[in-house]
Amino acid sequence: MHEFDIIKKYFSKLSSKNKNSLRLNDDVFFDRSKKLVISVDTYVHKLHFFDFKDPNLVMKKILRSSISDLICKGVKPKYYFISGSGNKKTFTKSNLIKISQSLKQEQKKFKIYISGGDTVFSNNLSFTIISVGFSNNIIFRNKAKLNDDIYVTGNLGDSYAGLKILKRKILLNKNLNKYFFKKYYLPELYLDLAKKLFNFANTSIDISDGLFSDLDKLINNQKLSYQVNLADIPISKNLKKMIFLKKLKKIDFISKGDDYQILFTASKKKSRIINKTFKSLGIKISKIGNICIGSQKPQIIDEKGNKIAIKNKGYFHQF
Amino acid sequence: MHEFDIIKKYFSKLSSKNKNSLRLNDDVFFDRSKKLVISVDTYVHKLHFFDFKDPNLVMKKILRSSISDLICKGVKPKYYFISGSGNKKTFTKSNLIKISQSLKQEQKKFKIYISGGDTVFSNNLSFTIISVGFSNNIIFRNKAKLNDDIYVTGNLGDSYAGLKILKRKILLNKNLNKYFFKKYYLPELYLDLAKKLFNFANTSIDISDGLFSDLDKLINNQKLSYQVNLADIPISKNLKKMIFLKKLKKIDFISKGDDYQILFTASKKKSRIINKTFKSLGIKISKIGNICIGSQKPQIIDEKGNKIAIKNKGYFHQF
Repeated sequence: MHEFDIIKKYFSKLSSKNKNSLRLNDDVFFDRSKKLVISVDTYVHKLHFFDFKDPNLVMKKILRSSISDLICKGVKPKYYFISGSGNKKTFTKSNLIKISQSLKQEQKKFKIYISGGDTVFSNNLSFTIISVGFSNNIIFRNKAKLNDDIYVTGNLGDSYAGLKILKRKILLNKNLNKYFFKKYYLPELYLDLAKKLFNFANTSIDISDGLFSDLDKLINNQKLSYQVNLADIPISKNLKKMIFLKKLKKIDFISKGDDYQILFTASKKKSRIINKTFKSLGIKISKIGNICIGSQKPQIIDEKGNKIAIKNKGYFHQF
Repeated sequence: MHEFDIIKKYFSKLSSKNKNSLRLNDDVFFDRSKKLVISVDTYVHKLHFFDFKDPNLVMKKILRSSISDLICKGVKPKYYFISGSGNKKTFTKSNLIKISQSLKQEQKKFKIYISGGDTVFSNNLSFTIISVGFSNNIIFRNKAKLNDDIYVTGNLGDSYAGLKILKRKILLNKNLNKYFFKKYYLPELYLDLAKKLFNFANTSIDISDGLFSDLDKLINNQKLSYQVNLADIPISKNLKKMIFLKKLKKIDFISKGDDYQILFTASKKKSRIINKTFKSLGIKISKIGNICIGSQKPQIIDEKGNKIAIKNKGYFHQF
């Protein structure tokens, strides 16, 4: 059962009297009266991060994943909490120093600070990160409008390529390895974009599970569907190169998750301000499709105009 | 290494510029400007709860443990988040129903509601609970004053007796078993006391690790010490009975943790208002000792007036 199914089935009723919790159907909790935004995520060894050989990189990856939830909703994170479960092998002195140093660097980069947490003994290494921000409003899920354009920031698929390389399923040269390795561990977040999203985005989400999976989640309570053009889905020059060299397929890389790019929809009328905003911020933006009527199944159109079927919409943390 | 040592050594520097985090040396985080209070705790199978045969009882125990952190600081909890790590064996349909039902009962009892969380796959069952409340102020640690009286609510040791029985290290009759079993799983919290603590308490903490361990923590940054009279430490009639029947010692039960009673210090001048308040609330209160100069070692005086040594000040979640 997928995590959101579990949450939905057993716990959404518990929050039914409380509008703030968004019936547990969003990536963040928003208390409008207190202007408070909170996200809670647990990251498990081998499930959410490949190994713990580089604790500094793992901590950066998971902390960015956590604050990404806020940023994609238009909220700047202010502080965070970490609860770490580990043992003597994972929480060695050397690792604790690395963890502490990497958090210090992230705090400076994203203007956040640690506010508390917990450390407990467990042979299964995991971290729960709570990110907190304050905002008068957030960009909610399920607020897409019919005919909205669908946009995505940056490039997709680099992180998944990095994971494949880490798993030694793809072998590349040193420079490309380094490039994808970095993309896997250090997703780029657009702190300066957060507040500007309110100027044009109707609804937004960050891509953590995979493009199509997150598109589904973005409109899961709406009677709407989407059409996406494969050719318009942005990938890096290096990913293009790798796909060409290794005779791989673009479609197998663009919806595998861990991208932490922002996916949003906006009225067609907003295209000018969108292009202007992203140009001024120096952030790549791509229009990849549009929102259509719900009676139509989600469609992905390939370069030749054919509809293609997606086997896996993303990856899920399955039970 | 103790969890607070780890936190202190590697992470307190990261929060040094931020007064709100109390340099990670308190049980809650308090953002005075936002009037926001947050506690974060992780509960691990076999470490923080004995087994998972009664998921409903486990959930109640750990949720109460989490909101207890707020209540003992004078703050009523408003909502909470749960992140659960488990597998197919622990998160069965039947268990999820039990978890959901018990949370529903706790929500009603303590006027709180679930606001989000996460569920992930792990063979090590654990839960991280985040409790959130709002308050103009909190009762901090390390605010004891010389000659303050030391008070504790309710009775100590029943929970530990319950654990001993669960572990089958003590065998009692059915009624006593039931009594201690309940004390282990369902600590009593004093929601109505929370706001009244500001009228008299200088500093406070809930007893989770053990009376003496938590007394140490309560004043760990102060040049103060304490003297406690063993005879004044409150235990239940049933615990007295068990200690008598099994030829055990009181000292071996009163500082083992998981009591979730409130430990606070107050000026001697406040004794009248304290007794009046607790009488009106129907809550047992005991004066167990006093705060003294730091050059003196912490002292526990037994019934005969002799100083006694404490081998273990409580239990720690050790690495």
